[in-house]
Amino acid sequence: MPGKIRTAQTVSFDVPAADQPGLHNRWHPEIPSISSIKPGETVKIECLDWTGGQIGNNDSADDVRDVDLTKIHYLTGPFDIEGAEPGDLLVVNITDVQPFDHSPWGFTGIFSSKNGGGFLEEHYPHASKAIWDFDGIYCTSRHIPGVRFAGLIHPGILGCAPSAEVLAEWNTREADLISTCTTSHPNKIVAQPPNEINAHTGQAEGDELRAKIAREGARTIPGRPEHGGNVDINNISRGSTTYLPVHVGGAKFSVGDLHFSQGDGEISFCGAIEMAGIITIKFDLIKDGMKTRGLKSPVFRPGDVAQLFGPSRYLTFEGFSVDEWGKQHFMDATVAYRQACLRAIEYLKQFGYSGEQIYLLLSCAPIKGAIAGIVDIPNVCTTLGLPMDIFDFDISIENAPVKRDLGTCPVSRD
Amino acid sequence: MPGKIRTAQTVSFDVPAADQPGLHNRWHPEIPSISSIKPGETVKIECLDWTGGQIGNNDSADDVRDVDLTKIHYLTGPFDIEGAEPGDLLVVNITDVQPFDHSPWGFTGIFSSKNGGGFLEEHYPHASKAIWDFDGIYCTSRHIPGVRFAGLIHPGILGCAPSAEVLAEWNTREADLISTCTTSHPNKIVAQPPNEINAHTGQAEGDELRAKIAREGARTIPGRPEHGGNVDINNISRGSTTYLPVHVGGAKFSVGDLHFSQGDGEISFCGAIEMAGIITIKFDLIKDGMKTRGLKSPVFRPGDVAQLFGPSRYLTFEGFSVDEWGKQHFMDATVAYRQACLRAIEYLKQFGYSGEQIYLLLSCAPIKGAIAGIVDIPNVCTTLGLPMDIFDFDISIENAPVKRDLGTCPVSRD
Amino acid sequence: MPGKIRTAQTVSFDVPAADQPGLHNRWHPEIPSISSIKPGETVKIECLDWTGGQIGNNDSADDVRDVDLTKIHYLTGPFDIEGAEPGDLLVVNITDVQPFDHSPWGFTGIFSSKNGGGFLEEHYPHASKAIWDFDGIYCTSRHIPGVRFAGLIHPGILGCAPSAEVLAEWNTREADLISTCTTSHPNKIVAQPPNEINAHTGQAEGDELRAKIAREGARTIPGRPEHGGNVDINNISRGSTTYLPVHVGGAKFSVGDLHFSQGDGEISFCGAIEMAGIITIKFDLIKDGMKTRGLKSPVFRPGDVAQLFGPSRYLTFEGFSVDEWGKQHFMDATVAYRQACLRAIEYLKQFGYSGEQIYLLLSCAPIKGAIAGIVDIPNVCTTLGLPMDIFDFDISIENAPVKRDLGTCPVSRD
Amino acid sequence: MPGKIRTAQTVSFDVPAADQPGLHNRWHPEIPSISSIKPGETVKIECLDWTGGQIGNNDSADDVRDVDLTKIHYLTGPFDIEGAEPGDLLVVNITDVQPFDHSPWGFTGIFSSKNGGGFLEEHYPHASKAIWDFDGIYCTSRHIPGVRFAGLIHPGILGCAPSAEVLAEWNTREADLISTCTTSHPNKIVAQPPNEINAHTGQAEGDELRAKIAREGARTIPGRPEHGGNVDINNISRGSTTYLPVHVGGAKFSVGDLHFSQGDGEISFCGAIEMAGIITIKFDLIKDGMKTRGLKSPVFRPGDVAQLFGPSRYLTFEGFSVDEWGKQHFMDATVAYRQACLRAIEYLKQFGYSGEQIYLLLSCAPIKGAIAGIVDIPNVCTTLGLPMDIFDFDISIENAPVKRDLGTCPVSRD
Repeated sequence: MPGKIRTAQTVSFDVPAADQPGLHNRWHPEIPSISSIKPGETVKIECLDWTGGQIGNNDSADDVRDVDLTKIHYLTGPFDIEGAEPGDLLVVNITDVQPFDHSPWGFTGIFSSKNGGGFLEEHYPHASKAIWDFDGIYCTSRHIPGVRFAGLIHPGILGCAPSAEVLAEWNTREADLISTCTTSHPNKIVAQPPNEINAHTGQAEGDELRAKIAREGARTIPGRPEHGGNVDINNISRGSTTYLPVHVGGAKFSVGDLHFSQGDGEISFCGAIEMAGIITIKFDLIKDGMKTRGLKSPVFRPGDVAQLFGPSRYLTFEGFSVDEWGKQHFMDATVAYRQACLRAIEYLKQFGYSGEQIYLLLSCAPIKGAIAGIVDIPNVCTTLGLPMDIFDFDISIENAPVKRDLGTCPVSRD
Repeated sequence: MPGKIRTAQTVSFDVPAADQPGLHNRWHPEIPSISSIKPGETVKIECLDWTGGQIGNNDSADDVRDVDLTKIHYLTGPFDIEGAEPGDLLVVNITDVQPFDHSPWGFTGIFSSKNGGGFLEEHYPHASKAIWDFDGIYCTSRHIPGVRFAGLIHPGILGCAPSAEVLAEWNTREADLISTCTTSHPNKIVAQPPNEINAHTGQAEGDELRAKIAREGARTIPGRPEHGGNVDINNISRGSTTYLPVHVGGAKFSVGDLHFSQGDGEISFCGAIEMAGIITIKFDLIKDGMKTRGLKSPVFRPGDVAQLFGPSRYLTFEGFSVDEWGKQHFMDATVAYRQACLRAIEYLKQFGYSGEQIYLLLSCAPIKGAIAGIVDIPNVCTTLGLPMDIFDFDISIENAPVKRDLGTCPVSRD
Repeated sequence: MPGKIRTAQTVSFDVPAADQPGLHNRWHPEIPSISSIKPGETVKIECLDWTGGQIGNNDSADDVRDVDLTKIHYLTGPFDIEGAEPGDLLVVNITDVQPFDHSPWGFTGIFSSKNGGGFLEEHYPHASKAIWDFDGIYCTSRHIPGVRFAGLIHPGILGCAPSAEVLAEWNTREADLISTCTTSHPNKIVAQPPNEINAHTGQAEGDELRAKIAREGARTIPGRPEHGGNVDINNISRGSTTYLPVHVGGAKFSVGDLHFSQGDGEISFCGAIEMAGIITIKFDLIKDGMKTRGLKSPVFRPGDVAQLFGPSRYLTFEGFSVDEWGKQHFMDATVAYRQACLRAIEYLKQFGYSGEQIYLLLSCAPIKGAIAGIVDIPNVCTTLGLPMDIFDFDISIENAPVKRDLGTCPVSRD
Repeated sequence: MPGKIRTAQTVSFDVPAADQPGLHNRWHPEIPSISSIKPGETVKIECLDWTGGQIGNNDSADDVRDVDLTKIHYLTGPFDIEGAEPGDLLVVNITDVQPFDHSPWGFTGIFSSKNGGGFLEEHYPHASKAIWDFDGIYCTSRHIPGVRFAGLIHPGILGCAPSAEVLAEWNTREADLISTCTTSHPNKIVAQPPNEINAHTGQAEGDELRAKIAREGARTIPGRPEHGGNVDINNISRGSTTYLPVHVGGAKFSVGDLHFSQGDGEISFCGAIEMAGIITIKFDLIKDGMKTRGLKSPVFRPGDVAQLFGPSRYLTFEGFSVDEWGKQHFMDATVAYRQACLRAIEYLKQFGYSGEQIYLLLSCAPIKGAIAGIVDIPNVCTTLGLPMDIFDFDISIENAPVKRDLGTCPVSRD
């Protein structure tokens, strides 16, 4: 007879993330698994926030400005799933995600353009922050008054360990990009190569192995097609089922970077409502599934529980691949989405928000970012749908905006 | 007492589009308006399909292969909206879109890579076509058996005429792109500059004026931020309200390129279910709205009537900015969405479809293309949600695909 | 190659309904079929409004007050479905319903308590009326300003002819009710027995047959479990599939009483937005389906296209089985729903509407009437959900209602 | 700065409900409040299951058969809301409901017709039970295999204490019903008058007061229009806001009878998935709201987070007021809904379920019970919508049902 759901791994708020043996912050096949889970079993897994506790529930953005980005993405795991072999699909059914009872809050940040940056860093170069208080499944922020919404809660990162071959492929192709971009994007960090500094190699034993993992281990920032990883997909939420390619024996599944809510794009980089918490997962296996389903990359079905807005309740901004300085780009969906974001910000500033407040809000609220038309040369058209019902005042076009006092969010200059 | 809704403009199926005076196929401020509509009034406007009737309801793709792309986008209009002045917002409330009773069908095409191309032209270089039969608000195709869905019916193109200044800006920036791309994209058409061939200048009188419009008039292919135009946004459907910037006296509103249904991205270029039909619009004005609402680009609210699938009924593919040849791109959402499309195609081919059939299907069915994460260098993550309920067989991952006989769609090689 | 959808039966606006041979207003197995439809075929069927044109587009409720209720429910049909036999299930897939282009309006009425009555006749005994103008898929009423909504368009009546046995069963059990109720409900019409006056027996030939049908034919007012009939179910709309028991050879399917929109309960009796129009249906058969599916009554799947409001946008009133005079009833869901209706009316009157305006509105707008709890003796609890987004002013509880000028609807006293 | 949400009242699993001072099981104005909550404050409130722990997580229905129905509805409270006065509206915003981590299960029961009964007691007279295991927000039952769904979690009971006048009104009108029904419903319990046996009078002090409350206190079974109470409305879930009339100083709010999920009607009486758990509520006051909003009964807005099924995914059964023995009733929505329920049961039995399994399932799964037409004399038409996506096999009509092994649920005969 089923009883209480077991917790497969806890985390501590009192011990530095770097010193907790159930965590790691690199992708590498040789990081040892911390424990084993049976197919068909449901477990709870505790996670720290993605910065490992660097950001505080306070009213200064100094901690965001000064964040140490080598100390991030402390993932919980890896877990062995019994019987998993390369070529299988790991079935990850997320049946719940919750913040810790003792810690009902999260944060959204804008990184300094000198330390992390983000999608609109040319316009908002300074560090900023909003703290969100959780009231059950809803959240509000003292730094962004006038809005309240339910979180579509989810993990930013989930994936299985790469094989040695997959890892080598990652390191090669990203190194190629870095070398190519030295000329095309001078002074710009285009990818993070392996970096030994602050590598957390989990329970790897022996200096040699730890050094090897630190030297070779893939960084956790990008999601990657072979395994998922940091996909930042907001509807991999409660009830979702993700089918993950297995590349190593036991699968070596890890998870972390929990988000209370995230807008499409997560535009400010530290853009979701970042939190520590507990994820409940039921695991299964489809043996030989990569071949029998013809899948080389993760596929998922979203959960069927969501905050539902009527379609007509989305005020929707259009963005094309003509940039904010008037330059025409060729079929660039990234430029196009940036324009939609900038327009939404300009619109909402009329109600009394600062640009930073809205940049933070669009990063974490349930906004919809869609690729509308991607074939009408030279312009991609994207849309950004902003749910009007999250505001406690009317933001529709029909009436001219009235400026009101909407406070401020902390900004910390370099 | 209101009576029958008046038809502001008819079209003919018996006269070539180029000879119909209620149409035009360039954006230019001096194309004369064909008639006048009062704010608050609802009218019906008839439209030809975007090719002006070049594609037939038959089982050959030769007409798609041989399409004359200088003879496209015959828009109905321009209409004067009484009292509209530059700086106003034109409120376009679409209350219905219908195919003609006598013509309950539409088409989706893949253009030859030598004549039009599309998003996946390297993979599917040959012309192909699917005919869709309308059964009320539903459609099916003899060329793509096994699917049926309701159309989220909408116009691909709607916008007001540019002012002379706006037009000059378009022509300059697109010419800049063309000149830049000679080296970066040799042998690639990156934009269509003004072209006198087959320019339809509407009711412009006098050789001089007609020649001027033909020489200067902006092509209708791209949507543009200043006025909308060919936005190909599928939820500007029944019930939607679009707020369009007005750049010239009377607004000079035009509409066309009706779609019975379109997937996000409209990936095969002739990708929606293209049709002729009748659009019903209620017009209004917000005087001085560009300034009082702070809007330089169109904004809209979708309609509140849609085909509704449960969130968990979307089988969702992930796509990252690593291209299909293994090359790592930097934050390129266009590459990322292409990967999601390619993966969905590979998956569905296992059920017995040809690649062309699915490429056509993804172009026109109600798929969701979302920007998931756009900040995790170097990978943008996009998702493509495929509604499982449009298929009359089970496409979920749980069971291995079984190949079945799903016919074929016509392909015409060059 | 499919072409234009054929119209299986037209109606005329110039000939009295009673004289049109494609109509009938009784359920009887011997009414001859008017034509034949193949399984798999889609056809259009034209229908008059349920009163056969007695109500005009004007500003007086006299025609509602004086309506002749023996002249109603002129159904189009019956149609033979080829190959249908008793025991089959007729599959009725409604793919579209449209008003006539030349007649884009409908009406909602409150009948006089002396001629028809309705759910709240003790409170609103006088005839009243609202005319609704259709603007594409939306409607508004000059008699009920401040509201606008999309119609979930549907037929009130659809069903196959009863067999002689089924008909006899109907007539017996309803006669039993009438005889029983003479004492329990004196002076109250509890059911309409067969009535020869104004019986329209379709294309029945010969005085004898016509007299037989008139004498025996079941009245069309009630829906009945054996075949459906006047079910007034608002989500049997576009895209819905209804499975109807077949009781006679050929099925003899009839349809009529089209509604542009109807609230749950259709409380004012002439409560939907009644209209003439055209319904498009695709027919199929499940041979021997009543036995193989174990079905004695109609079952349906709603369409997947609807006006979608967010769940939290419904202001919801509770109603219990304690009546408006304080009397406790035992588990009476009918009394309970009446209370929810009365409370919604009282609430909305505060904004400036008359009681009749709201009674009409609740009858036809997309309100949700649900059975919440039906086991907590002695009180059934029902709920009435009122979508706030159909109003162009705020009706939420948070702010106290402000009375405004909301005009009036015509009322005609006896 | 907000911190952890405080728990306003705990419950114990080790002490009998009757001995816990934070509980009570009667509605009476003189039950003392247990503590005080500020308007604007969010608190957690723990609740026992409605039977106070009488039902076990096991495979016998004996405990359901033998349940002591005088020992039920142990509500947590009453709470004083600071500043609340008669005539105010208490705003109850439910921001979360959760089962206890240590007790992730619930039960659904059919009571014996000799001890409690239910909506279909003539057909299913014997006690039965299903245990549901919670897997995050989802549940499954070993007693009803083949189904899985997310819970729309909610309290069955919430309300403020009646004033002495309101209480007197309740007792009078229910006594009137009982006396009337002695002849109309002999041998049937139609309502539960005050009963001193096992009255839990909370923290009332002194024999006299306790005896008075036990003698006068209203039973908790029925919901009542003046305050809500046991409304069993399943969409008063997370995110909902209920506006409750205040009848006594401090409001004296109580809550209990938590449900993990409940179908419309809760037809088997112990029909929801009953559980102990924790509800999180944010309270507010609208001063003098009963008058300024014209409200005499509770009104609510559902939460905006729900399990969302596409409209066409509901297999929908029709039920009319002709009972299962062929008798015609006059406009009886209760009879009509019973028919819809019986038809759904007969349909699903074909797949291999027992009648009891489905009766239990319809009671607790997210089924929709709607009042379709309530004016077509003599038949009310109701509908029961059954979401097909909760089954792991296909229940649509298109294919004939295939019997499979679906186990059994325990049944205990008297």
